Amino acid sequence: MTSTQDPQEGSFRLSRRNFVLGGAAILGAGALSACNDSKATGADSAAEQEAPGAVTVAFDGVHQAGVQTPAQGFLTLIGFDLRAGSDLHAVQRLMRIWTEDSRMLTQGQNPPGSLEPEMTVHPSRLTVTVGFGPRLFDIIGKADKRPSWLAPMPVFSKDKLDEQWGQSDVVVQVCSDDPLLNAFVARHLTRSSTTIVTTKWFQQGFLNSPGVRDAGETPRNLFGQKDGTVNPHTDAEYDDRVWIDENDDSPEWMRGGSCLVVRRIHMNLDTWEELDRTSREVSMGRFLDSGAPLTGTNEFDTADFDKTDQYGLPVIDVNSHMALATPHTDNSEDRLLRRAYNYDAAPVPGSTELSNAGLVFCCFQKDPRKQFIPIQTRLDASDRLNTWITHIGSAVYAIVPGTQSSSDYWGAALLES
Amino acid sequence: MTSTQDPQEGSFRLSRRNFVLGGAAILGAGALSACNDSKATGADSAAEQEAPGAVTVAFDGVHQAGVQTPAQGFLTLIGFDLRAGSDLHAVQRLMRIWTEDSRMLTQGQNPPGSLEPEMTVHPSRLTVTVGFGPRLFDIIGKADKRPSWLAPMPVFSKDKLDEQWGQSDVVVQVCSDDPLLNAFVARHLTRSSTTIVTTKWFQQGFLNSPGVRDAGETPRNLFGQKDGTVNPHTDAEYDDRVWIDENDDSPEWMRGGSCLVVRRIHMNLDTWEELDRTSREVSMGRFLDSGAPLTGTNEFDTADFDKTDQYGLPVIDVNSHMALATPHTDNSEDRLLRRAYNYDAAPVPGSTELSNAGLVFCCFQKDPRKQFIPIQTRLDASDRLNTWITHIGSAVYAIVPGTQSSSDYWGAALLES
Repeated sequence: MTSTQDPQEGSFRLSRRNFVLGGAAILGAGALSACNDSKATGADSAAEQEAPGAVTVAFDGVHQAGVQTPAQGFLTLIGFDLRAGSDLHAVQRLMRIWTEDSRMLTQGQNPPGSLEPEMTVHPSRLTVTVGFGPRLFDIIGKADKRPSWLAPMPVFSKDKLDEQWGQSDVVVQVCSDDPLLNAFVARHLTRSSTTIVTTKWFQQGFLNSPGVRDAGETPRNLFGQKDGTVNPHTDAEYDDRVWIDENDDSPEWMRGGSCLVVRRIHMNLDTWEELDRTSREVSMGRFLDSGAPLTGTNEFDTADFDKTDQYGLPVIDVNSHMALATPHTDNSEDRLLRRAYNYDAAPVPGSTELSNAGLVFCCFQKDPRKQFIPIQTRLDASDRLNTWITHIGSAVYAIVPGTQSSSDYWGAALLES
Repeated sequence: MTSTQDPQEGSFRLSRRNFVLGGAAILGAGALSACNDSKATGADSAAEQEAPGAVTVAFDGVHQAGVQTPAQGFLTLIGFDLRAGSDLHAVQRLMRIWTEDSRMLTQGQNPPGSLEPEMTVHPSRLTVTVGFGPRLFDIIGKADKRPSWLAPMPVFSKDKLDEQWGQSDVVVQVCSDDPLLNAFVARHLTRSSTTIVTTKWFQQGFLNSPGVRDAGETPRNLFGQKDGTVNPHTDAEYDDRVWIDENDDSPEWMRGGSCLVVRRIHMNLDTWEELDRTSREVSMGRFLDSGAPLTGTNEFDTADFDKTDQYGLPVIDVNSHMALATPHTDNSEDRLLRRAYNYDAAPVPGSTELSNAGLVFCCFQKDPRKQFIPIQTRLDASDRLNTWITHIGSAVYAIVPGTQSSSDYWGAALLES
């Protein structure tokens, strides 16, 4: 948009003519794409196309974006509850609005109701991803369509859950490489839905900034550990572990969708930092610098759990985080996609802890009964890291399938059935 | 650092041999530079040198870094209070430790007491900047050396100050292009000082991520406004408005230093977004898209406050933010450096406001009695933006001069006098 030279713009006249015209021009400049690949928008120059801010992630596809998408720098995760009186019709309306607005925002276009097109011109790999909590199915009168795995999570023995980070009816995951855009989009979607939902919680997280770490390098968490090494990488691995298909115990409408488990994990940096470096590595089962298993040299080396040291003890402690989290056979089902973000909030006044930090741990899978829950049961029982980490929030969601075309909307296969 | 292959590393032995050797190698790889220019570290390849994460800002110089340094993407601003019983000797020790550690951290080196050298290898334009609050001078028995302007700020009529964001004895500003590094550095400096200071407050802020907006483009705040257009740009302008010299009413030891005023400014996005776009521009006195004055076409055009529209009314409203904030003559003293960051915290439970957002407004100047206070007095009286913004925090600090050499430490000219 160019500035208008009309001196009347300097008065209090309420005309939105110039704004509407400008907005239409922006809308006309982009075209929706049909698959979830990253691509540069139709920018003016090659240089602009390469700028991190200019890269878009396609919206429509078999799966929602924001799962298989390489992790962006920033997470804003919002748990919403349906207002009393909201029904199927309200949820349909909510999903139509959110789908339409997110389809535009992710492509660098300004959605209806936003008077700030300048805030959306750097799409920065923005994705918006939506999931449904268990209660939503009762509210819309479709309890029979609820996946059998979409049930309250077990409370693990070491959990210290705070209901402020608990289950909600809907979740929206906003991820991009720009915190300003994340703030704008999270607010836009919240504002466009206030008659239907209220915000239950609001969790923000970050990784290294785009460009700061090397492309493809596994990000580190606040314990200094590489986090996400054993994630799926190929389409086949995603199909195997993350995306629901006809072979899974899920209703037909969920095909192409996934299951999201959100855990808020507090990390006590004070006590962690009392450990010497070797003990930190033993607790994790990996070297801190390379992220390699203690039996290997490279991050992606296969761990050798049978290897022993000169005293006959396992090199990788059986209660190390990795030993308990990693499946020990090639065909184990308990593998999933970790998409965790760091949080570093203001210290709690009066607390003896110097920091208020941890992970917004998001993991995606086909069925939590076969994936997250067995893994977490092992970790809860004996993970050495339990001395320094505490799970304080827990929720589970059905990540609805992707929108197949620009006329489709999130959850339509359920909501129109 | 490369991974060690010693299988003993897999046991609980406490040896730090490999860690210490690796750390020493990292230390040896860097050399301190003598002025506050940005430069790439001694990286292995040209590609690595150009990565945003590899760029360092020199530590020693006439002025501290982090003021004239082009704003990085992330701010962590910590207000510390001296513990009861802390004296001159304690403050000397604190400044020696913080100076030594910050000098290393800003150059991508791992300081003593950190067992996580991997967290410091992407310096990402890190700067650490230190200031003293009024009470510190009494505590160290040097009230006669306190700048006369370092006094409690006036409470303006529309202020709604919350003591939780109020004056502290010391301030540390950590800025870099990577939020993970900011978290690490803020924690490292806090941890190394717990016997001398306690954290009073902890404020975090962000701009667009590095690379997302064009180089040199003025960043936008959450009202969608370009923020910082009228900042100094040349060395001469910095000398004129920001850096204290022999012509200013400050003690001799402050030469090369500055004054920081921190205001926490809440922005009510809910009511702001009820405004149509023209009214938003009238309130600001600038076009939202270009940031140009309403009498101009380009962001840096000089505003024409005398220009009237067809009704004889000023095109730039006399109570617009810009008209009140900008000096109207070329030799006005009331100009300063704005270095403001956005905050977007979790919504306050039970609040009717959808967001909990605003600015951590940091401004640097020679003397707040001639700069911030006269400007804010005008804004407080009649700024149209006052309908949507509220100042909720206020503090003022003496930003000590830069360290002249690698044996100098912050505040030595005061603390050793």
